[in-house]
Amino acid sequence: MAGIPWGYCPLFVLLSVCAWGHAKPVDLRRENVRNCSTSPHYLPVTVINTTVQLKDLRQQMHTWNLSAYIIPNTDGHMSEYIGEHDKRLAWITGFTGSSGTAVVTMGKAGLWTDSRYWTQAEQEMDCNWELHKEVGSAPIVNWLLTEIPTGGRVGFDPLLFSIGTWKTYDMALQGSHRELVSITTNLVDLVWGSERPPVPSQPIYALQEAFTGSTWQEKVSSIRSQMQKHRKAPTAVLLSMLDETAWLFNLRSSDIPYNPFFYSYALLTDSSIRLFVNKSRFNSETLQYLNSSCTGPMCVQLEDYNQVYDSVQAYTSGAVRIWIGTSNTMYAFYKVIPKDKLIEETYSPVMVTKAVKNSKEQALLRASHVRDAVPVIRYLVWLEKNVPKGTVDEFSGAKLLDKFRGEEEFSSGPSFKTISASGLNAALAHYSPSKELHRKLSSDEMYLVDSGGQYWDGTTDITRTVHWGTPSAFQKEAYTRVLIGNMDLSRLIFPAATSGLMLEAFARKALWDVGLNYGHGTGHGIGNFLCVHEWPVGFHSSGLTMGKGMFTSIEPGYYQDGEFGIRLEDVALVVEAKTKIK
Amino acid sequence: MAGIPWGYCPLFVLLSVCAWGHAKPVDLRRENVRNCSTSPHYLPVTVINTTVQLKDLRQQMHTWNLSAYIIPNTDGHMSEYIGEHDKRLAWITGFTGSSGTAVVTMGKAGLWTDSRYWTQAEQEMDCNWELHKEVGSAPIVNWLLTEIPTGGRVGFDPLLFSIGTWKTYDMALQGSHRELVSITTNLVDLVWGSERPPVPSQPIYALQEAFTGSTWQEKVSSIRSQMQKHRKAPTAVLLSMLDETAWLFNLRSSDIPYNPFFYSYALLTDSSIRLFVNKSRFNSETLQYLNSSCTGPMCVQLEDYNQVYDSVQAYTSGAVRIWIGTSNTMYAFYKVIPKDKLIEETYSPVMVTKAVKNSKEQALLRASHVRDAVPVIRYLVWLEKNVPKGTVDEFSGAKLLDKFRGEEEFSSGPSFKTISASGLNAALAHYSPSKELHRKLSSDEMYLVDSGGQYWDGTTDITRTVHWGTPSAFQKEAYTRVLIGNMDLSRLIFPAATSGLMLEAFARKALWDVGLNYGHGTGHGIGNFLCVHEWPVGFHSSGLTMGKGMFTSIEPGYYQDGEFGIRLEDVALVVEAKTKIK
Repeated sequence: MAGIPWGYCPLFVLLSVCAWGHAKPVDLRRENVRNCSTSPHYLPVTVINTTVQLKDLRQQMHTWNLSAYIIPNTDGHMSEYIGEHDKRLAWITGFTGSSGTAVVTMGKAGLWTDSRYWTQAEQEMDCNWELHKEVGSAPIVNWLLTEIPTGGRVGFDPLLFSIGTWKTYDMALQGSHRELVSITTNLVDLVWGSERPPVPSQPIYALQEAFTGSTWQEKVSSIRSQMQKHRKAPTAVLLSMLDETAWLFNLRSSDIPYNPFFYSYALLTDSSIRLFVNKSRFNSETLQYLNSSCTGPMCVQLEDYNQVYDSVQAYTSGAVRIWIGTSNTMYAFYKVIPKDKLIEETYSPVMVTKAVKNSKEQALLRASHVRDAVPVIRYLVWLEKNVPKGTVDEFSGAKLLDKFRGEEEFSSGPSFKTISASGLNAALAHYSPSKELHRKLSSDEMYLVDSGGQYWDGTTDITRTVHWGTPSAFQKEAYTRVLIGNMDLSRLIFPAATSGLMLEAFARKALWDVGLNYGHGTGHGIGNFLCVHEWPVGFHSSGLTMGKGMFTSIEPGYYQDGEFGIRLEDVALVVEAKTKIK
Repeated sequence: MAGIPWGYCPLFVLLSVCAWGHAKPVDLRRENVRNCSTSPHYLPVTVINTTVQLKDLRQQMHTWNLSAYIIPNTDGHMSEYIGEHDKRLAWITGFTGSSGTAVVTMGKAGLWTDSRYWTQAEQEMDCNWELHKEVGSAPIVNWLLTEIPTGGRVGFDPLLFSIGTWKTYDMALQGSHRELVSITTNLVDLVWGSERPPVPSQPIYALQEAFTGSTWQEKVSSIRSQMQKHRKAPTAVLLSMLDETAWLFNLRSSDIPYNPFFYSYALLTDSSIRLFVNKSRFNSETLQYLNSSCTGPMCVQLEDYNQVYDSVQAYTSGAVRIWIGTSNTMYAFYKVIPKDKLIEETYSPVMVTKAVKNSKEQALLRASHVRDAVPVIRYLVWLEKNVPKGTVDEFSGAKLLDKFRGEEEFSSGPSFKTISASGLNAALAHYSPSKELHRKLSSDEMYLVDSGGQYWDGTTDITRTVHWGTPSAFQKEAYTRVLIGNMDLSRLIFPAATSGLMLEAFARKALWDVGLNYGHGTGHGIGNFLCVHEWPVGFHSSGLTMGKGMFTSIEPGYYQDGEFGIRLEDVALVVEAKTKIK
């Protein structure tokens, strides 16, 4: 899945999205979108009236003496997908797209999003909202500078800003005489009140030992041993991301769509393990599994999820040093930990350790991919028979593939929303069909299917592009060059510890040769029943250098606007090469 | 020249140097090096006694209440080569290698340098000095943490630290309870006193218009226009690097070996131009050329070189915003400019503008390379005739090539010290022969010559590797693969604005395929009678993205320790490609 190949970090998501700037929306009639230039405004039925929530939010802003308030579309863990109760952006703006940032001032309200969502925003937002067809913090800050006076205070929730996001705003506002103000109470939540969907409460369970690479005790010992060897002698490691705690404790649940995670933070110290989570979600067996009744170094003490901020602050009062990964920690923690007690590295030791799969994890992930090939092949064979009949559409096709996948052993649902795109729709980034809006599959068009599954042993991701009739000479040439790119990168021999960024052009060269290219990343890491986009392995600039035991997708493509799209994706494992000379 | 392919920035130089870790020194007898483990110590005649200067420095450190003092081997402009009066490291340690950092505490003194210089350091340093066979700030900080007590103050000269260097030390000392103390008085200079070589005083002259791409007035207007378009509305640009002022004003001199520069800083504001320089070095014609007698926006006001620090500080008292390139500005300025008056980008607008050569500059640079081919070919032909006679050695060969080059039109000397390396010497990074130490050229060995010239129109750089007899099968294979790499990268078609880092592996792939590689960068920018390593164009991670009108060297290689070395280097220009489809 090339969806957000550059991982969770908002900065990189935005960069990736930028590259898709030329994608055009599916055919839509003008009556479906708002018109704020007429009097009265024309508003389609899909629009949400946001007048009340905006009034209430501005009252809160007044109380906090703010000139502006920033509302990103994230949760407190930089999750790629977010749960219902974190969909603050959708509630305040009406806009339900997955990517965007809202900013509210006393007089105006603006939404910034990329081209994939411009039409959708015009369908869903009322005229309280300006649509800004740009992404990144720079245009938002430029707008703020014209909208709010010198001395103005710009509020944000530090649990919804990564350190990186905070730095880009802070840098952009430098010297502007506007102040960026961190407020730990989320103002949207205050206004949302009792209407806000509840946080999930389904059980959190331990993975069977057959599906884990090591016990949680072995993982904790391994991280502690890295702490001991670290020259700055950290006393604790702070974990913010949901796949960090899921991996470390071998626990899973289903709080996040497509991801088997549960809301949590962890503070792993040299003498204790503190897991911040809703305790009531564990049964007695799991509590015993975690040794939660004791307080020794190998006992997991459960503390309330909402206590994490105060607890970390209290911990910093001692003679401690907290090791964080700056690219995967929320600004709230960065702010609260005194700088002389902070040990900053790009990634936490859990992120780095998790990136290299041990032999058991490799075998598990391979096995899940072997099984996953079955539903994909069943589906492709079925398509070959049924598409010529004219009875298959993108949506029914995707449903059937999901059904086939669900029949495989250890299946636990799709790992992301299946991309099933026929003809020109395959040229749209992130396109997924819906019950209402989809295209019929035809022997006259190319068809792209990008899908994956969650299995107890591994997470999968695969893309195939097919044509059941006679593709054009250009389609054949583009397909062949995408395939060459996939094969060239898959077969590449390179020195240990090479950055993925130095390698990914081998997947592009055959396209570059004739003036073609694709506007997304070339691959991403993948987990064992964890994230389908597992950070930080991949071919992006912030990736770890490539090492034995890392898995990455390889997924070059080519997209011809308004005509067709091609992507060929496999998941590859980095192994030791045997070469002629050395 | 692959010497320091990652530019001036100390951080990148160190990374580059690390990669050469396995190079071994040329054959040397043990009597040539010190032995500090015997009593009394054994010291060869080449050693410098540093007892007095160390005692004096420690007295200064005591006055300033310092536990340690750091002495890098740089000047106040991050220059690649430094003048005599900046050779503080050599004076205090005795060690004359081009790369290293010294740290003095009250009880100890240490030098950190890379493998190229380990033997040389043992030949030149007395037993006051520990030799540390490591590079980078991390091992220095680790040593400091064991050598100086909690609360200890570590002094440094902020004009000799880039912002990046300062940040690495600051980050490494974070939480250590040792303080990094910036002292604008250089303590080594205080002790060096009147023995310190004087600063250069030769004339500074204007380039003839035939050799410039634009007049200085056009360049100033172009930079000011970028200031006006900048969304943060800078009122000034501060220039720290010597090739920035040389380029901007079309002025040259000869303060730095191999580089036609003159010591200077510049503050270009929206209404004035201030050049900090030794005024007495201009004749009346050049003063007139600079409009130095007026004070308008197109008049160059000359201020004393040593005034720059105070002048910039005074300027910041106004309602101003100073635009700097963080990768090419000294920490002294970063410290003195209030953060809300600082506009930070990676490179100054002069660095970015200079990177793209206009059509006249392109023609000039091409012409210099065409002429430069003549002495190289003359030399190769001469070698073919004379090497079999057994009368040529590395040193006499290099001298002859320099002589041939000097006979070309517009010649202004070599652009770096000629690397003339026979047999196993070519496997040593940065090897240059000397009158005392060189090897005979032979038809039984490979020979590598990496050289370049300064001409009034352009700076050149070329490497060829030859064999006059029968190379081994392995030598042929390695040579062929290096050549394939050079050709593959030279012929590569890639999209506009691609990062060089994403491209350079094409120069390595043919080597990687059989398990070979090389440990240096693949190319660097080059100037018009400026730096042979012109930052920031190139294939490194901090390079500008590749654009039309940029020149870069392409120089893959292969080095077989103790046997031979191969490097094939050309200078390439980025031009628009004509492709089959788009």
